Formats: sequence, structure tokens, C-alpha cells
Amino acid sequence: MGRPMARNLLMAGYPLIVHSRSQGPVKELVGQGAKEAHAPKAVAEQAEILIAMLPNSPDVELVALGKNGIIEADNRRLIFVDMSTISPIVSQKVAKALEPKGVRMLDAPVSGGEKGAIEATLSIMVGGDKAVFDTVLPVFQAMGKTITHLGPLGAGGFTKLANQIIVAVNLTALGEALTLAAKAGLNIELTLKALGGGLAGSRCLDQKTPNYLAHTFNPGFKIDLHYKDLGLIMEAARALGVPLPTTAVVQELFNALRVKGRGGLDHSGVITLLEELAGVEVKAKQ
Amino acid sequence: MGRPMARNLLMAGYPLIVHSRSQGPVKELVGQGAKEAHAPKAVAEQAEILIAMLPNSPDVELVALGKNGIIEADNRRLIFVDMSTISPIVSQKVAKALEPKGVRMLDAPVSGGEKGAIEATLSIMVGGDKAVFDTVLPVFQAMGKTITHLGPLGAGGFTKLANQIIVAVNLTALGEALTLAAKAGLNIELTLKALGGGLAGSRCLDQKTPNYLAHTFNPGFKIDLHYKDLGLIMEAARALGVPLPTTAVVQELFNALRVKGRGGLDHSGVITLLEELAGVEVKAKQ
Repeated sequence: MGRPMARNLLMAGYPLIVHSRSQGPVKELVGQGAKEAHAPKAVAEQAEILIAMLPNSPDVELVALGKNGIIEADNRRLIFVDMSTISPIVSQKVAKALEPKGVRMLDAPVSGGEKGAIEATLSIMVGGDKAVFDTVLPVFQAMGKTITHLGPLGAGGFTKLANQIIVAVNLTALGEALTLAAKAGLNIELTLKALGGGLAGSRCLDQKTPNYLAHTFNPGFKIDLHYKDLGLIMEAARALGVPLPTTAVVQELFNALRVKGRGGLDHSGVITLLEELAGVEVKAKQ
Repeated sequence: MGRPMARNLLMAGYPLIVHSRSQGPVKELVGQGAKEAHAPKAVAEQAEILIAMLPNSPDVELVALGKNGIIEADNRRLIFVDMSTISPIVSQKVAKALEPKGVRMLDAPVSGGEKGAIEATLSIMVGGDKAVFDTVLPVFQAMGKTITHLGPLGAGGFTKLANQIIVAVNLTALGEALTLAAKAGLNIELTLKALGGGLAGSRCLDQKTPNYLAHTFNPGFKIDLHYKDLGLIMEAARALGVPLPTTAVVQELFNALRVKGRGGLDHSGVITLLEELAGVEVKAKQ
């Protein structure tokens, strides 16, 4: 995700300093005009806005608060924009730790996948101070399309988690409904058309219809990643005191898919587990 | 549902013979030009197409196969169109029992609620012989808008059950997501807007947004009725051998709502149970 987002910033004319553990994307972006730095601290000392796009909470903690991290830099003008999907509670902790250094922070996770990153059509869900949001807005606009300020720091992350609940559970509902339909002998194409025309209609149904019809589940958004998000959801829900009975079942189904070695499938591939439970044999169309 | 559907048939110029256990709708329709009959058998003897709209499987069995039922009539031209949401397995049994009498049957459950019935915009999901479907199509067009022939008898009912899985589970997902959002201190209106713009977007989210914002859950489609449908879903799923782990949890949540005396709420009111589990106190806006 980070590479296409950075490319869009370069294309919008922003001078860019990049750092990553992987040298491939760094070399590519340097070839396109970016400058390289060798640690988060070095980026933080030279930049006005530092954007992180990392796998999970510990990575963000390391980059922000670890050795050679943002916290060691001397730059009281710095705005730290974390666009990773991590625990919003960790975001709040990181922001608090950076505050004495004068660093202001936004949490700004995205939805829309690699396609949205490449095409600069990401939906960006932002939490943090409104004045800081207004300062960063033009930079967001170079990477995304629907940019929403949702409240104080953590609000972006909590909204992303709410989004991930709905998507995981709705994809599982589609999996259960289509497995029942298959065992009842229905034509799946006709069924999807009839379902899409009523109250069961959704963006998941529309976007994943080609996967269901071809019965191939190339990502897209991987089960592994959505399983990570379900862990963040349950962690946040427990911290806030919110029992999530349906999401918990879906988390276990996603867990079972990983156990079976299917973590690399698109998240709509949860249907393959439900078909297996029902003894449905479906062959991918070629 | 039956009354507005019958009214639309009268308005389209079809001569109508009506029968119901409730005298109110019968009197009203007779006032508008319908003829009254005193038993299903009497309707079946005079009509070319007999349409039933009944609460559940046993009601359809009684009207079709019981004393003074359709099976006792002598009319080999009759087409029996059952538009009730019942067990598709019972539909298949009824069709089989009526076959020796020359009665042809379609199962044609609807989606769209009383509003769709009044405005003749129902989505009608039809199973049965295609030639019989073609004969009845103009009659369906007087009552609905999206009319889909899905396969042999029972296909309408199975599609409706698939529809009801997705709607119940997605409304529960919305309930869990919005409860997490509320406890995280998010503004629900902004959250719904951000969610609606991404992969979490759905017709449920769009149609139920006013309920979530006002925190009033006037039906709409009652929890009592959706709970009945969840029973039909689990019954059909067991008969076909389809484990439905997520739907089963949602069925229990709908059951809990009934235990608490909230079966009369709109099905989006499942959120009130999730809020209660999380200790969220929300007052309805006036």
C-alpha cells in the first residue's frame, strides 16, 4: 500500500523522503525523485508531515517510540500521520508519548485496497485535532477520494474497525446464504441477481460477484489481513466493554481458514469453509 | 400484505374472488369490486389463478390440503401461486400432493414489505415450471417490479431464505459495529456516512440509517417475523445438510429480543440488544 500512495504524493508535486525495511520500494521511489533516509528519526528531523503505513500496532510503536524512532527527533513542527490499521488504543498511547516532543498526530486508516491506493481513490478515516486535519487535507487528497474527519485521535481507527466488522460478517453471511442456495440446487448467478435487487444488496455482494461466479478467490484483501483486523476489533471491544457475539464467530471461521492454509485467499473466500462444512464440492471455473 | 396486493390486482382490472379468516380486508375488497368466497375450496373452483399470502407453513398446508381446501376442488385448469414465506420443503410437498388433481403450483415469496405491496414494487422470487411462470407473469407485474424465475418449485422459497440470512446477519453486524462506535465515543451520523462510502455499504445501512439516528425502531419488518424466517432457514438448512454457524448466533440474538418483549420492533432493532450487552444507554430522540 505504501508504495503507490508515495508515488501519488510524488506525482502531486510533494518532495518526499522515504524509509522502509524493504529496499525494493525505496529504490523505486528514489528513482522517481524521492530522497532516502535511513531511520524514522532521520525522516522526522527533515519532514513537516511524516506518514506511516505499517502492518500492525507493534510496528507503529517501534517506528514512533523505539530506537531511532520519531520520538528521538528534534522537530517541534512535525505532524505524524499514521495510516496503518492498528489498535486505536495504541494510537492514543503513541500520540500521548509524542505530545511532550511537540509532535502532533492523526490516525488515518484507509479502505479501498491496493486498487484504491494506486488510483488515489482511498477512503481515508481520520481522527485527531481538526486544525491538524485541515493542514494535512491537501496531502490526503493526493492519495484518496472520500476523506472524513471523524473526531479526536483514535476515531479514524475505531471507524475502520467498525467497517471491518461489517465487511467480515457480511461476507460470511453471503457465504452461508450462497452455500444454502447451492445445496438447494439454485443457479448462483440468478440468485445473486435476485438478492442484489432487494434489501440483501450490498457493495460486498456487487464487488465479490465475479469471485463467487468464477469460484476463484485471488486477493483482493487477504483473509490473513482481515484476521489481523478481527484481532484488533476483539481487543478494542474488550478494552471498551463491548461483547460482539457474531463477530467472534466470524473470527473463529477466519481462524479456521488460516489453519487450513487459506489465509492468502481473498476474504470473500470464507465461503470455501462454509461449502466444506456442508460437503459442497465446487470446482473453480477456468 | 394480502390486502394491498389484492387491491393492486383489482386496479389492474383482474376480477377477484377473496377469502380470509379476517373479515375486515374481505369487506374492504368486496366494497372495491371483489367477490367473496367462504372457503379456499370455493375460490379454487371458480378461479384460474389462486394466490395465497399466509403467515407460515402450517397455514399453507391447511388451505391447500386441509378440509375445504384447494385439494377438494374440481378444477384441472387451476394454478396455485403461494406468495407466503414458508418452508420450501413444505412447498414441494404441497405441490406434489396437488399434482394428481391437475393443480399446477408456483412458490413466489416476496421482498419489499407493506410499502412494496402498496406501491406494487415488490421483488417476487418465483420457483416452478417456466411455462406456468409465463402464464402468471402479467399478474405478478400488477403486484411487483423485480420478478425473477429462479428454477423449479421451491427455488423461490430458497432464494427468499438466502435473502433473509443476509439481511438478519448484516443488521446484526451493523448493530455490533455501531455499538462499538458508540462506546468509542464516535458520532454515529459521521460514522454511518464514512461506512456507507466503502465496502461496508449496503441497502440495509442506507434504509435503516434514519432508525439508527433517531434510535426508534418502528417496523418496517418485525423481529417476530424475521425470527420466524430464521426458524425456516435453520429447518431448511438441516434438511439439506448446511451448517450455518453465524446465522445460528443471530437466531439466538433475535430469540433474546423476543424474550425481552421486543419482537414488535423493526429488525434493525437488534442493535438495542447489543447496546444492552455493552451497557450503552441510548435515549430515543424526540
